[in-house]
Amino acid sequence: MNPNLDKFVMTAAERPPLPPAERAQFLHRIAETVEALGEPLIELCSAETALASDRLRGERARTVNQLRMFADLVEEGSWVDARIDTALPDRKPVPKPDLRRILRPLGPVAVFSASNFPLAFSVAGGDTASALAAGNPVVVKPHPGHPGTSRLVGQAVSAAAEQSGAGNWTFHLLDDSSVEAGAALVQHPAIRGVSFTGSLPAGRALFDLAARRPEPIPVFAEMGCLNPLVVLPGALRARGEAIVRALTGSVTVGVGQFCTKPGLVLGLTGAELDGFCQQLGAALEQVPPGQMLYPGIADRFEASLQGVAEFSSHAGGGHLLRADSRAFRDHPKLREEIFGPATLVVGCDDEADLLQTLRGLAGQLTATVHLEPAEFAAGGPLIEILQLKAGRLIVNGYPTGVEVCPSMQHGGPYPATTDPRFTSVGTAAIQRFARPVCYQNFPENLLPPELRDRNARGIWRLINGQLTKDHVGGSTPAAG
Amino acid sequence: MNPNLDKFVMTAAERPPLPPAERAQFLHRIAETVEALGEPLIELCSAETALASDRLRGERARTVNQLRMFADLVEEGSWVDARIDTALPDRKPVPKPDLRRILRPLGPVAVFSASNFPLAFSVAGGDTASALAAGNPVVVKPHPGHPGTSRLVGQAVSAAAEQSGAGNWTFHLLDDSSVEAGAALVQHPAIRGVSFTGSLPAGRALFDLAARRPEPIPVFAEMGCLNPLVVLPGALRARGEAIVRALTGSVTVGVGQFCTKPGLVLGLTGAELDGFCQQLGAALEQVPPGQMLYPGIADRFEASLQGVAEFSSHAGGGHLLRADSRAFRDHPKLREEIFGPATLVVGCDDEADLLQTLRGLAGQLTATVHLEPAEFAAGGPLIEILQLKAGRLIVNGYPTGVEVCPSMQHGGPYPATTDPRFTSVGTAAIQRFARPVCYQNFPENLLPPELRDRNARGIWRLINGQLTKDHVGGSTPAAG
Repeated sequence: MNPNLDKFVMTAAERPPLPPAERAQFLHRIAETVEALGEPLIELCSAETALASDRLRGERARTVNQLRMFADLVEEGSWVDARIDTALPDRKPVPKPDLRRILRPLGPVAVFSASNFPLAFSVAGGDTASALAAGNPVVVKPHPGHPGTSRLVGQAVSAAAEQSGAGNWTFHLLDDSSVEAGAALVQHPAIRGVSFTGSLPAGRALFDLAARRPEPIPVFAEMGCLNPLVVLPGALRARGEAIVRALTGSVTVGVGQFCTKPGLVLGLTGAELDGFCQQLGAALEQVPPGQMLYPGIADRFEASLQGVAEFSSHAGGGHLLRADSRAFRDHPKLREEIFGPATLVVGCDDEADLLQTLRGLAGQLTATVHLEPAEFAAGGPLIEILQLKAGRLIVNGYPTGVEVCPSMQHGGPYPATTDPRFTSVGTAAIQRFARPVCYQNFPENLLPPELRDRNARGIWRLINGQLTKDHVGGSTPAAG
Repeated sequence: MNPNLDKFVMTAAERPPLPPAERAQFLHRIAETVEALGEPLIELCSAETALASDRLRGERARTVNQLRMFADLVEEGSWVDARIDTALPDRKPVPKPDLRRILRPLGPVAVFSASNFPLAFSVAGGDTASALAAGNPVVVKPHPGHPGTSRLVGQAVSAAAEQSGAGNWTFHLLDDSSVEAGAALVQHPAIRGVSFTGSLPAGRALFDLAARRPEPIPVFAEMGCLNPLVVLPGALRARGEAIVRALTGSVTVGVGQFCTKPGLVLGLTGAELDGFCQQLGAALEQVPPGQMLYPGIADRFEASLQGVAEFSSHAGGGHLLRADSRAFRDHPKLREEIFGPATLVVGCDDEADLLQTLRGLAGQLTATVHLEPAEFAAGGPLIEILQLKAGRLIVNGYPTGVEVCPSMQHGGPYPATTDPRFTSVGTAAIQRFARPVCYQNFPENLLPPELRDRNARGIWRLINGQLTKDHVGGSTPAAG
């Protein structure tokens, strides 16, 4: 079907992974070649996506930071979760063998570029960086919305592969961004894992294709959700205006085209919530209209708003919808993500109704609670429920702005993602693309370097149940 | 459909998980109540499964050891992979929030009992122990082959729940062991994860049901495979007789009813391999016939042998099949697991043919290589391929006998399992049933205890990228 892909992926599937130092060098080199694309990349990308140059410069910084973060992670080396249980030849009733375990690459990974992050979750974005960091060859399916950006960045990655000696079997950019090309990629027998950022229907379609393969493969699809934000009465009284201001920003930043956009605000029905809605509606009305990424996305936004037109309250550069908790429960459309600058305020009768409404929510990437110290006790049961629903909980903040660090969890129960056990942002994203291999009674020189007695790389290892940087046998390696 | 299940699982889904100390107490108590069932359990189980009492006593020891191992893991506490990144309020261009992340339970888990481990992978087996250890309520679907054993052990677990104060919402044994009851369980909206040990068709059917749910859930199915064992010529010459003896044991132990039974032996065609096959065939013939677990399993074993009758070489209590590598490639039946005391020796023309044959293998739980020190260099490319195929690699040993420890990986690429990123044996099995949750800008007293500044439990935490047992802020907790 696609001879270029076949040739790449069949070769890639059989090559041993790059050693960690070379992998890190490759990632560093990608960061450099992407940076070297300079302003022409920003200009082209802005023309293709309608995103402002400043935002794209920020996104480029995030992209190269991610590449360098994964390079550092691989160089430090402890991410492989090395475990060593030494033999007990005299154990009764049977001797205990020597067992050592490490994370190895999963195999060729298919990365689907996102529309709304043309740099940070596209050709050289977080999915590519984490899959390469784990030692996997990567095939990227470009997004049709920014073909020139994809081509430029793809060339930069290929140049980095050549310059760093990583080899041309480590990275492949499909020259076809069609739905059919994506479907064929997920079904390719040599592909071992998939990552995706985008809409629920598209993510689910890829998940279904992967699950129906003769050999099913894992799909990490990060899709859509509401990102509920609860405002308790004390917080509304104490800083209602500040919440209106910051929430307006969070709903409309990037023309509302973030997967973490707060699309649902929950409060207790009453005069205070009415006043808050008035202020929020007025603030959203005053936001200057922004251009969405692509005409198709703008059309879908309009269609989504049409579907809930009866709940429309204020419209401008940002849109406010209002409903009570009964309407929210009765109208499925109100519980669907509206991708764009719109949010829905739902008034609940009382705290019991609020808890009940939260219990009825599907899976979420984030959930936010605004509350005052006097309300911490009341917040407990609420947080207990939200922990079941979301991957990231925020107190007195806003969900947009996803920090890239070890503690980040960007993933949650379906439909937020297809597997809540993983994250697509932060260092833990590497875990999506690795699998453990155990070596039993291996001679030292056939073991992977990280599992040999001598801890040459000075990584953390679990030796006989104790986490340590010692060599096997106990002597501490020289600091370095 | 099943009001008892509905009632249990709907309650279970909303209860906060037991605190770690209580969880550990529950697991310890299960070990005690299972032990207290004494010889009547062994006798009943032996009558139901045709397994010898000694084997079952050993399996009971493994079962209670697993329960205690997970209790210890939960009490020690570091398994939650706590990560803390403290705030940088002055960072430019935007402040860095405080982010803290921990593993939490996935939600109600469905455990499918295995036929071949009526204790260690059944009602109170490794899947139940690891799912409970992670804080999940568990529903067990009993295996129809050992109903009395399941009932006794189920009562022991329920008694332990009551005695330890864990509550009756932590464990539920289905009173229906039918295929339909299992299918309904996997499709129950409140179930959040599934573990299964058994045949490929049954495991795949559950995987498909789970993938087709409105909200798909992860399935960890440990199914069938060949467990290839390669014998290089030097090893054959140096210790052919010892290999024949031990391999005969590994093929026929437990009447060949282990998922790690070596079902495929690969060597280089020639007089030495012929001699080895003669010896192995004679040894397998002499094994006394054993009774299989259930009539259905014996029938399937016979049918499997019939399907490859033309390759039959020796038959007795153990069966030997022989084929060359071409026949192995051409006959799909030769590449299917034969569950029972049989193994297939495949002769390859030369080393290139051997490597080619290995490249053509599907996913495996284990892969074994017998080689002499002089053959280590030749073993390199072979191991390179086997690492892509299997979860556990063994040098100069045998795959049966799965050690329960942190370094174990009992899982491999499909069809060995449905997700090679996880293991069903060893402490890491707990990771199947947990998902990370991140807490952003949380006040100290709303955080889970493990994420508070003070490291009260003295667990390992990754604080600002450094693994430490310190409190946040740097002071070391008192040793204890």
